Amino acid sequence: MVTGMVDIDPDRLRAAFDDYSAIGATDDDGLHRLTLSADDQRVRDEFVSDLEDLGVSVRVDPVGNVFGRREGTDADAAPVLVGSHLDSQPYGGRYDGQLGVLAALETLRALDDHDVETTRPVEIVDWTNEEGSRFKPALMGSGVYAGAHDLDTVLETTDDQGTTVAEALEEIGYRGDEPVGPTERPDSYLELHVEQGPFLEEHGNAVGVVDGILGMAWLEVTITGDSDHAGPTPMHTRSDALVAAADVVTAVRRLSTRLGDDVVTTVGELSVEPDSINVIPSEVTFTVDLRSYDDATVDEGVAAVEAELAAACEREGVDYSLEKIWQIPHTEFSPGVRDAVEDAASEADRSFERMVGGAGHDASYVNDVTDAGMVFVPSVDGKTHNEAEFTEWEDVVAGVEVFANATRRLAERDE
Amino acid sequence: MVTGMVDIDPDRLRAAFDDYSAIGATDDDGLHRLTLSADDQRVRDEFVSDLEDLGVSVRVDPVGNVFGRREGTDADAAPVLVGSHLDSQPYGGRYDGQLGVLAALETLRALDDHDVETTRPVEIVDWTNEEGSRFKPALMGSGVYAGAHDLDTVLETTDDQGTTVAEALEEIGYRGDEPVGPTERPDSYLELHVEQGPFLEEHGNAVGVVDGILGMAWLEVTITGDSDHAGPTPMHTRSDALVAAADVVTAVRRLSTRLGDDVVTTVGELSVEPDSINVIPSEVTFTVDLRSYDDATVDEGVAAVEAELAAACEREGVDYSLEKIWQIPHTEFSPGVRDAVEDAASEADRSFERMVGGAGHDASYVNDVTDAGMVFVPSVDGKTHNEAEFTEWEDVVAGVEVFANATRRLAERDE
Repeated sequence: MVTGMVDIDPDRLRAAFDDYSAIGATDDDGLHRLTLSADDQRVRDEFVSDLEDLGVSVRVDPVGNVFGRREGTDADAAPVLVGSHLDSQPYGGRYDGQLGVLAALETLRALDDHDVETTRPVEIVDWTNEEGSRFKPALMGSGVYAGAHDLDTVLETTDDQGTTVAEALEEIGYRGDEPVGPTERPDSYLELHVEQGPFLEEHGNAVGVVDGILGMAWLEVTITGDSDHAGPTPMHTRSDALVAAADVVTAVRRLSTRLGDDVVTTVGELSVEPDSINVIPSEVTFTVDLRSYDDATVDEGVAAVEAELAAACEREGVDYSLEKIWQIPHTEFSPGVRDAVEDAASEADRSFERMVGGAGHDASYVNDVTDAGMVFVPSVDGKTHNEAEFTEWEDVVAGVEVFANATRRLAERDE
Repeated sequence: MVTGMVDIDPDRLRAAFDDYSAIGATDDDGLHRLTLSADDQRVRDEFVSDLEDLGVSVRVDPVGNVFGRREGTDADAAPVLVGSHLDSQPYGGRYDGQLGVLAALETLRALDDHDVETTRPVEIVDWTNEEGSRFKPALMGSGVYAGAHDLDTVLETTDDQGTTVAEALEEIGYRGDEPVGPTERPDSYLELHVEQGPFLEEHGNAVGVVDGILGMAWLEVTITGDSDHAGPTPMHTRSDALVAAADVVTAVRRLSTRLGDDVVTTVGELSVEPDSINVIPSEVTFTVDLRSYDDATVDEGVAAVEAELAAACEREGVDYSLEKIWQIPHTEFSPGVRDAVEDAASEADRSFERMVGGAGHDASYVNDVTDAGMVFVPSVDGKTHNEAEFTEWEDVVAGVEVFANATRRLAERDE
């Protein structure tokens, strides 16, 4: 049962945020802390030291996920798992991931401050390689934990220098020997994260209560035309791969107006061959990223992209191939976890809204093995994955307060 | 005065074509003979040896242009200059450039066969680095000859490995010490080249009589938007540099329908930053190649590209910069040289048409210092700058026959 709010300590939270942000700090107030790097080792060491100061027992699994367990009063109760990730994008921001781990750490500290004993254990976690910048795929640690990725395959994955995940884990001393995955199914999982979009700021709300994560498909398209000389080749005999690709880029941009409001479509990568100023492009390769909360709409979008591609290539007299390189259904988080967050936000008198997340998160994988949920805090201008990523400190405090009290509520809930 | 046709020897021409094509041959019947490479040295050595066998005097200038002079009967008459270039594109074709040098060589040989004494000397030339693939700019040797490029600047130009033109010339033994440029103004210049376009083949004509070369402008455009996350960033807050660039690619393609039939417009290079599948492109850089025989139309085209660019960027809420990196006016070849080619084609009963060239040629620079002209032979499917470049042998023979007799006509013409 829940009795009264747990107060967090904003000054202590700020001090921790500044300490952690100094590890891998960039000149422009960002964070460059690639997974399993020397800076990742330093921040993990600080994290483990902070956990040991709290007297929680620390364990590390074979993919480097770090867990710390604060016991509850019921020895048989399944734990509440809370956390996020400490790795960053290349020259990324200080809020993405790190803030979720520090919210969980402050929660444990606040529980200690007030001598709160929870029924369930509360476990904190730092997931390895959420970002996927150095080693692919992203969400590596939580994916292995949830059984979505094969451990041995992941350990053999290499970065651009040919270093394997296994070697990098050994190098920084975080190749643990605890069992992989949930040896006991957690009761629930909660993660705080920056929204990475503009809605909370636009609507003036402090906290986002996350219903789920958009489903998505990634496409790779290659268009093949003829590389003729830009001078003597008249317009009517050309088969220009880039002209056809430009049509598709425009069509992809417009798709959301046909498919629905929550659909987002992006061409993020595009390259041209032979890429010479006076040669008509013979080959263009590009990607399409297509997301919606409705999985059928994602399928409809994929079909629409292929139809637009076929029409553009027919017009230009060029060929194409289309490959769906990845697709995941939407994630629907647990109503029980969502209720705990809403109740905590109401009790704390923080304005909140229900929303869906557009980016992938560790919580999506963890949702496969237990009831998961997320708390979003506002991102100024929706900026993320770069050094300009910023959240107003008062929004951080509000979010962590809601997170801590939602965690406490989960730690008291019945089986 | 001209008395009767000079017959060329098609078998000898074929043998020379096959011999020269073996130097730098690719597995797919193409030619990979970059300027000032070891293969360029070998083909130059063969060329010089062939000239010495003809008893013509050979000289090499400081940028490696090779000249051979067959004397005329009038010691005071200015020479007729004929030739092209022996360097190729990377994995290019066997006809581009080489065929023009071999047409000139066969012309000298045919004159010898028939003991023809011309009034004017006939000089043959192999221009250094027409292609501009290894060292920039293209048309290097003829540009230095015509005074368009500064010799010292050109000699210091480096390739991707940091080798200078001067070093490469020394390495292959072709850094000559003859004076730079025309010490005596030639009477005229004639160059045979493959059309590199489809018109002769489409119209079923054997020979193109070239009125001139299109004027052209090269533009470099950078569009700058915001690199937000492809998932949580809603469509309405995006500033996607690639979406704006796609609009411009489409507009550039359509420009010719507004500006005129002879206008060709191409976006050949395009690159995207950060070029990541789930990140909205923040920067796109691309080039525009715009050509017309009417210089005012080129200017109008540049203005139209900027207007389309401004409109596309306004729609998308992104910024742009546009730089004109190169512009040259159209080349109008000499009516006298053109008449000589037409007369030779009529006499040989070869079908011909007047046309303009779309690609740059050494003849454009030489036209600055004397009366220049060109003969085109058909390109199958208009293919060029790749190994599939091909001209039917009967078209080669027809073209070289017209070329040889036009050269003889020029060598007899009055001051």
